[in-house]
Amino acid sequence: MPRVVDHEARRAEVVAALWRVVSRDGLEAVTVRSVAAETGMSTSVVSHYFAGKDDLLRLAFRLVLDRGLARAGAAPPGERARSLLAGALPLDAERRAEARIWFAFVGLAVSRPDLEAEQRRVYRALRTALARSLGDDGLDERFDAEAEAAALIALLDGLTVQAAFEPWRLSGRRQLALLDERLAALGIG
Amino acid sequence: MPRVVDHEARRAEVVAALWRVVSRDGLEAVTVRSVAAETGMSTSVVSHYFAGKDDLLRLAFRLVLDRGLARAGAAPPGERARSLLAGALPLDAERRAEARIWFAFVGLAVSRPDLEAEQRRVYRALRTALARSLGDDGLDERFDAEAEAAALIALLDGLTVQAAFEPWRLSGRRQLALLDERLAALGIG
Repeated sequence: MPRVVDHEARRAEVVAALWRVVSRDGLEAVTVRSVAAETGMSTSVVSHYFAGKDDLLRLAFRLVLDRGLARAGAAPPGERARSLLAGALPLDAERRAEARIWFAFVGLAVSRPDLEAEQRRVYRALRTALARSLGDDGLDERFDAEAEAAALIALLDGLTVQAAFEPWRLSGRRQLALLDERLAALGIG
Repeated sequence: MPRVVDHEARRAEVVAALWRVVSRDGLEAVTVRSVAAETGMSTSVVSHYFAGKDDLLRLAFRLVLDRGLARAGAAPPGERARSLLAGALPLDAERRAEARIWFAFVGLAVSRPDLEAEQRRVYRALRTALARSLGDDGLDERFDAEAEAAALIALLDGLTVQAAFEPWRLSGRRQLALLDERLAALGIG
């Protein structure tokens, strides 16, 4: 009887291993070999699920986005935009790891057209999701949801840069206060 | 008679070559060898001025900061903060090149403690300069200049990320409007 392989479970195992490697050693350490070593699978098995390093990097970046969208989706209307944005601020170790993945990704995207295209795709998905959340939260129709989403993501990204490198200069409370101030200006929260 | 070497002129020549390599090929392409090739000097001469790749990367990042500070210093009181911030937005090819240097630097700083320390130093210098500019511009004393400087730099950084990768999604006019809106809220401009 042939051995039945649960491909989805294996894929999830590879994804979890990838996440551990990135959090611990940085995006530079990601190779099919290092992720395989982390799972205990062979490199040929792992490369069956991911074509190579670029595929793994894209996946790491996608993961950061998916975690953010899952947080937003779980929030009730009225709190969705804040949940999406506040949930992405580097307020704890897990989200500081996500921020480092984002920095490393953007740094590589500068000279890698395939990663640059992925950067654009992720930001488009993020803007669309946030614009929809703003609508769910009751954004006044005199505001352009897409444009306000872009401005809010800009604030989030900029806060993340300073807070990830110097958390003692920009406290969690201050980050949230700046975010809430902008949402209040949009009539939300 | 010994040949007189103008060290400052040579150093400036190396810096100009470094800038060309980064703008054209990205920060990843920076090595003592590639910068030497760009100047036409030998690698041993270039390495007399810069100890190695890390030294060159730090210099590239410093250059971005120095250009920003020079722009701000040249502006009259009342326009200094806006000049510093607007001058750093990726509104033209030169400033998009600066943005790419910044992304690449931050991406590397994630896993390189020496570059991470430089990232902190540059941001401290930038916050201090901007806080001073806000004071020169007549910031009301009910605001904390350092805290407002951090928030304005966050906005600048976040706008830069989206505008550098998707300039067609966040026009120069929209970038400047968002900046001016924040400065107006501080009673400036």
